[in-house]
Amino acid sequence: MISIVILGSGNVARHLFDVFLNRNGIDILQVWGRNAAHLSYFKDRAVTNGDCSELLEADLYIIAVSDDAIPEIARTLVNKKGLVVHTSGSVPLNALDSNNRRGVFYPLQTFSKGIKVNFKTVPICIEAETEEDRDLLHRLAGYVSDNVRETSSEQRRFLHIAAVFVNNFTNHLFQIGNEICGEHDLAFDILLPLVRETVRKLDYLNPLDAQTGPARRGDRKTMENHLHQLDNKIYKDIYALLSKSISEKYGQKL
Amino acid sequence: MISIVILGSGNVARHLFDVFLNRNGIDILQVWGRNAAHLSYFKDRAVTNGDCSELLEADLYIIAVSDDAIPEIARTLVNKKGLVVHTSGSVPLNALDSNNRRGVFYPLQTFSKGIKVNFKTVPICIEAETEEDRDLLHRLAGYVSDNVRETSSEQRRFLHIAAVFVNNFTNHLFQIGNEICGEHDLAFDILLPLVRETVRKLDYLNPLDAQTGPARRGDRKTMENHLHQLDNKIYKDIYALLSKSISEKYGQKL
Repeated sequence: MISIVILGSGNVARHLFDVFLNRNGIDILQVWGRNAAHLSYFKDRAVTNGDCSELLEADLYIIAVSDDAIPEIARTLVNKKGLVVHTSGSVPLNALDSNNRRGVFYPLQTFSKGIKVNFKTVPICIEAETEEDRDLLHRLAGYVSDNVRETSSEQRRFLHIAAVFVNNFTNHLFQIGNEICGEHDLAFDILLPLVRETVRKLDYLNPLDAQTGPARRGDRKTMENHLHQLDNKIYKDIYALLSKSISEKYGQKL
Repeated sequence: MISIVILGSGNVARHLFDVFLNRNGIDILQVWGRNAAHLSYFKDRAVTNGDCSELLEADLYIIAVSDDAIPEIARTLVNKKGLVVHTSGSVPLNALDSNNRRGVFYPLQTFSKGIKVNFKTVPICIEAETEEDRDLLHRLAGYVSDNVRETSSEQRRFLHIAAVFVNNFTNHLFQIGNEICGEHDLAFDILLPLVRETVRKLDYLNPLDAQTGPARRGDRKTMENHLHQLDNKIYKDIYALLSKSISEKYGQKL
């Protein structure tokens, strides 16, 4: 049985709580947070106070707070014997206090309030300083996911950048499509089959081979027409820059 | 029974051929193309010669060639009584010859060689100049898709631009993620659950509400770190521009 204390009450803390709760082999002792209003989510596991002095001894302390707050929260745990991990993509392991056993438990996924995630497929990127701690994290991650990977702080940092491109920026492109549709009396859902196919293709092709479109073909006329028709300045800039990047990638001259 | 001649032998022609072939209510009379090598795909329906003089009388002529070639191919059909349509997103209906009955049959999807598409969900955007011709296109589209929409040339032009954003540009962002992974000894498939979730979210949220990430939060520190870590100049520019666009959209000051 792995005993756990979760520190944090935001999206990641909630999703971890939901997936760990009532799972054989995992015992959530407490969820600590500053914001009493957020803590109602965690019912009888919730603890709130300023100095974490009520925290029980646990095998594992999972810090699931904003990146900036990690070092401060970590310092309150210096006297704990359990392994202390954070859940951030961009924060190195050594942002945690060196008096603790330290590790990282980074679920590479986007978590939204109220949208349930199938953890079985979520890559859990783990890192620790000893074999024993790695084993503990492997065991915990293995309870909830079939996709556990050891990654260094350096790899995780770049994974997080890649995630910004394929998730945050991709969603913004969807939003641009959404706006263009709205301006021309078209419902956004007309684009969804195309969006789904764009992703489904990755089951068969790597993205380098899957690339299509005017920039890939070096079809200057279509690109000029599109640029001419876009009236939002920054969307025009995005169109031009992404087209340039694709063209250069495939050796097309614009 | 709707009798059809397809003009063209590329991806779109092949996918239409596959979905129309042996479908009750549709009879493919011929597939015409210039490139004899490509025509083997269409077996006994294939015709090739320079002037289209061997083309049979049909209810419908579907021109599925590159945008630039549409007017020229259309001119060879001026003496035909059947409805002449093209399949392009960006070409207006009136690029076809005004001596013909004219229309558009635009499947809003990305077609790759050898990857079968489920046409049932593909939006087919149709346009015609008479009620009778619209009915014919509705009937044909309805045989293969549950998602038929009448769209004007103007709407279709903007749909095509939106499609470039949500398909071509999105795929390029996947490629950037792919490269970042490759440079740090990580397999691209580690990003796939995140990519799939980014799209699955659109079943619950519109992209405006689904936006997350450093730019959405106005988290300058993370963005500066990421920019610092990217060494590819153009990917740096893409990161900066998309972050700026997201920040402006959500009223965050960078």
